[in-house]
Amino acid sequence: MKTIDLNCDMGESFGRYTLGMDEDLMPFLSSVNLACGFHAGDPVVIQKTVEKAVKHHLAIGAHPGYPDLQGFGRRKMEMAPEEVEAMVLYQIGALWSFVRASGAEMTHVKPHGALYNQAAEDAQVAKAIVLAVRRFSRELIIVGLAGSVLVTMGLEYGMKTANEGFIERGYLQDGRLMPRGWAGSIIHDPLKAAQQAVCLASEGIAIQSENSNTTLKVDTLCIHGDSPSAKEIVWRVRLALEEAGFFIKSLAG
Amino acid sequence: MKTIDLNCDMGESFGRYTLGMDEDLMPFLSSVNLACGFHAGDPVVIQKTVEKAVKHHLAIGAHPGYPDLQGFGRRKMEMAPEEVEAMVLYQIGALWSFVRASGAEMTHVKPHGALYNQAAEDAQVAKAIVLAVRRFSRELIIVGLAGSVLVTMGLEYGMKTANEGFIERGYLQDGRLMPRGWAGSIIHDPLKAAQQAVCLASEGIAIQSENSNTTLKVDTLCIHGDSPSAKEIVWRVRLALEEAGFFIKSLAG
Amino acid sequence: MKTIDLNCDMGESFGRYTLGMDEDLMPFLSSVNLACGFHAGDPVVIQKTVEKAVKHHLAIGAHPGYPDLQGFGRRKMEMAPEEVEAMVLYQIGALWSFVRASGAEMTHVKPHGALYNQAAEDAQVAKAIVLAVRRFSRELIIVGLAGSVLVTMGLEYGMKTANEGFIERGYLQDGRLMPRGWAGSIIHDPLKAAQQAVCLASEGIAIQSENSNTTLKVDTLCIHGDSPSAKEIVWRVRLALEEAGFFIKSLAG
Amino acid sequence: MKTIDLNCDMGESFGRYTLGMDEDLMPFLSSVNLACGFHAGDPVVIQKTVEKAVKHHLAIGAHPGYPDLQGFGRRKMEMAPEEVEAMVLYQIGALWSFVRASGAEMTHVKPHGALYNQAAEDAQVAKAIVLAVRRFSRELIIVGLAGSVLVTMGLEYGMKTANEGFIERGYLQDGRLMPRGWAGSIIHDPLKAAQQAVCLASEGIAIQSENSNTTLKVDTLCIHGDSPSAKEIVWRVRLALEEAGFFIKSLAG
Repeated sequence: MKTIDLNCDMGESFGRYTLGMDEDLMPFLSSVNLACGFHAGDPVVIQKTVEKAVKHHLAIGAHPGYPDLQGFGRRKMEMAPEEVEAMVLYQIGALWSFVRASGAEMTHVKPHGALYNQAAEDAQVAKAIVLAVRRFSRELIIVGLAGSVLVTMGLEYGMKTANEGFIERGYLQDGRLMPRGWAGSIIHDPLKAAQQAVCLASEGIAIQSENSNTTLKVDTLCIHGDSPSAKEIVWRVRLALEEAGFFIKSLAG
Repeated sequence: MKTIDLNCDMGESFGRYTLGMDEDLMPFLSSVNLACGFHAGDPVVIQKTVEKAVKHHLAIGAHPGYPDLQGFGRRKMEMAPEEVEAMVLYQIGALWSFVRASGAEMTHVKPHGALYNQAAEDAQVAKAIVLAVRRFSRELIIVGLAGSVLVTMGLEYGMKTANEGFIERGYLQDGRLMPRGWAGSIIHDPLKAAQQAVCLASEGIAIQSENSNTTLKVDTLCIHGDSPSAKEIVWRVRLALEEAGFFIKSLAG
Repeated sequence: MKTIDLNCDMGESFGRYTLGMDEDLMPFLSSVNLACGFHAGDPVVIQKTVEKAVKHHLAIGAHPGYPDLQGFGRRKMEMAPEEVEAMVLYQIGALWSFVRASGAEMTHVKPHGALYNQAAEDAQVAKAIVLAVRRFSRELIIVGLAGSVLVTMGLEYGMKTANEGFIERGYLQDGRLMPRGWAGSIIHDPLKAAQQAVCLASEGIAIQSENSNTTLKVDTLCIHGDSPSAKEIVWRVRLALEEAGFFIKSLAG
Repeated sequence: MKTIDLNCDMGESFGRYTLGMDEDLMPFLSSVNLACGFHAGDPVVIQKTVEKAVKHHLAIGAHPGYPDLQGFGRRKMEMAPEEVEAMVLYQIGALWSFVRASGAEMTHVKPHGALYNQAAEDAQVAKAIVLAVRRFSRELIIVGLAGSVLVTMGLEYGMKTANEGFIERGYLQDGRLMPRGWAGSIIHDPLKAAQQAVCLASEGIAIQSENSNTTLKVDTLCIHGDSPSAKEIVWRVRLALEEAGFFIKSLAG
C-alpha cells in the first residue's frame, strides 16, 4: 500500500498573539512540527499544542528556529556551528519535555524558516543541525527539503531522514523551490494544491539539469497552516491523496 | 558516615557576558544547579557548563527562573500557575537535553531567585513547580529552602525533596533567612562561612517560635559562586566540613 | 461646548503577529496610545502605526509597559523605582523618535496593563512614571485611571493629567473598576457601551463611600480595540457622544 | 591647531552583567558611543552611563545594533531596509531620551558590530541607517569606517559624516581592516597602539591599489574599552596624541 506523510508547522502562537488554526487542521494530518519558543511558541502554547496533537494521534516533531521572534525565524542569522548545534539541541529538549510529560514520543525534527533554507544549502549549518539531533537521539528522523544538503548530511551521519515536498509552492525545473514573489511561486487554489500533492506523492520532484533527468522521491508533504484557505486546502489534499490510493501515515508510523 | 551535599548555582554567563568562576569552584562541590536560559545562561553556555560539570563528576540539576534576563530572575513576576508549570517544564527539558547528550543524568531541580523565594511561601507557585518536575520525572529531587512550602508540597506529591541551607546568609530565630540589607544578612568572612557550614550540616537550622523550639535538618548547602572571595570560601567550607567528619556527596548519591 | 477625548491602545502587533484593527477604528477617535516595543509593538509596527495616526490627525501618546511580550505587559513585575523610571523614559524616547520623524508631536503618556494598574495604587510606581515623563517633557499629559494615585502624583509634580474612564468596563460603587471575571465587569453590548460612554462623559464616575458621595470628572474615554465588536462599538459610542452634544477632541486640544 | 576625536563604545553592561570600565576611561576621551538596549545596555545602564558621560563633558552618540543580546550584535542578520531603518530610529530615540533628560545633546550615531560592518560595504544597509539618522535630525554626525559606503552614503544625503580609524587594529594595504584572527590584526601593546593613533591622526590611512596611492583622512579614533590593558592604552594614546600636537576634541566641537 502506498503511504505518504502529511505535515504542518504548528504551535506558532505566542502569548496574546494567535496564529494558525491548529485544531481545525489536525484531523487531516499525520504529523505536526511544533515551534519551540525561539521564533514562535511559548511554554504555554507548546503545552496546549502538544495536548491537542496527542489527542489527534499525530506524530510530533520539533521545529527549531533562530532566536528571532520579531522576524519569525525568517531572517538569516550568521551563527557559528557550535551556536547552531547548541540552539537546536536546546529547542529539541524544551519541546521534548512536553511531549514526554504528555506520554507521547517525539518522532522527528524539522528546522524552521531561514534555518531550514540555510540547512538546505550550507553544509556547516546542516552538519550542526544533524549533530544536535543525533546527540539527542539516533531514532529521530531529520526532515529537510527534498534533495537538500540537510538530508544528504543526515544520511552521512547515519540518521533517518525524510525528503519534504511543498503542496502550495511552485518548483523550478532543477527541483528547487521557486523563489517567493515569482509568478506561480505560491499555489492558492485548493484544487491545484490537491493536484500538486498527488503529483508529489506519486511521482516525486522532477529534476532536469544539463546532463540528467531524475526524480526525487518525496516522503512527506508540507501544508501551510496560515493561509486563508488552509482548511479547504487540507481536506481537499487529503481527499485527493486518498482517492489516489495513498494512506496518510506519519514517517515514524 | 555523615554526608552532606555542597551545591552552587552555575552556568550564569550569557553570550559576551561572563559571570562566576564555575570551573575554579567545581572541584570542591558535589552538585551544581545550572541556569536554563530564562534568567541567565544561553545554549552555548549550557553546553560548556554541562561538559565541565560532567568532567568534575558533579550531580547536575536544573535551575529554572523567570524569563527576565535584565533582572536576573530576581524580580517577582505575577504568573498564572499554568504559566509557571509550563515555564519550569520547558527549562527542565532544555537543560536535560544537554545533560543527556553528554551521557550524564539530571538529578534535581532547584528554582532560582524570585521563583525560589515565592515557592518557599506561596502554595500555588510551589505546586506548579512540583507538578512540572513530577511530570518530567518522578526521580528528580526538588531542592527548596529548608522548611519551605516547596519542600512540603514536594513531599505531598510523593516527590523526593531536599532542604537547603545557605552558608553565607544569616538566619532569623524563626528559621527564615535574614532579609538582604540587614546587618549580618550576608557572611563575607570565609572562616565564619565555614563555621556556619559545619553548624548547618551538624545541627540544622534552629527554629524558635512562641510554642516550640525545633531544628530543621539540612540536606544540601548552597555556596555563592559570584562573591569576590568565593574561591577561598569554597575550599575553607569543604575543609571544615571534612574535618568535622562529613563526606561531601551529592543528594542523588 | 462640551468636549471629550476618545482614546484607544494601538500598535500592539509584533512581527508576524497582528492584533487589533487599528486603521478601521482611527476615524472615530481623537487619540491613540501606542505600544513602545516592550509589551507589544516593534520598530516597524511603530513606524506604520504612527504614519496612520498622523494621517488620521490623532493625538499620539506613548503607552509604555513591562518588558514582557509573552504576558503582554499584564503580569505585574516587581521593579525598583529607578528601573521603572528608566524603562518608561526609554520607551517614551523610542516612540517619540517616530512621531518626530513623521513631523507630528507626542501629546501624552499612558502606562499599559499591569504598570497602569500598579500606578493607580502604588505611590512608588506612580512617582517613578511621573518623574520619567517630567524628565522627558513638562508638556506631556499623564493619563491614568480616574481618581488614581498616578493622577494625584502627576498633579503633585506640576504635570498636566487626565482622568480616564472605561467604556466597556463596569464600575464599583466606590469608583474602582469591577475586577475582570465578575458578572458585569465587561460590557459587550455596543448600545450599553455607548450609554456608558455618554454617562461617563456627562456625569463622571460616581463614588460612594461611608462618608461622602462625590463624582469624578472624566477627561478621556478608553475604548478597547481588540473586542470582536470593536468596530460597531466605536461608531455607536462616537454617535451617542455627538448626539449628547459632545465634540470629540484630543486632550492636547 | 590640529584636533582629533577620541571615542569609545560604552554602556555595554546589561542587568547583572558588567562589561567595560567606562568611568576609568572617560577622562581620556572626547566622545562615547552608547549601546541602546538591542545588542547591549538596558534602560538603567543607559541612565547611569549618560550621567557619567555628562559629568565628564563627553560628546554622546547612539550606538545602535542588531536585536541580538546573545550575539552582542556581532552576528549578521538579514533584515529588510525598512526593518533596519525602523530599528535604528527606535534606538536613537531611546538613547536620546536619556541624553535630553540629562540636559545634554546627542551629537552622533555610529552603528555597532555586524551592522557597522555591513554598513561599510552594503549600500542598502548604509542607506537605511542614513535615512534613520536623517529623519531624526539633520544635525547628527554619522560615524563610519574610514572610506566606507556608510560615509559616502551619508555625504550623498547631505549629512555630516566622520571617518573612523581603529587604534588597536591592523590595516591592509588597500586600507581595509585586517580580518580578526590574522597575525597583526589586533594591537595589544600600548606603545604600539599610541604610535598607530598618532600615525592615523597625522597621516590618515594609506590606501594602495593598482592604480593609485592615496590616503584617507581620519576624523575620529576608536579605542576598545574592554581589553585588559584598556586603561594603559587610553592614557598612552592620549599622551602621545597631545605630544604630537593634537588637541583631543569631539567631532561636534
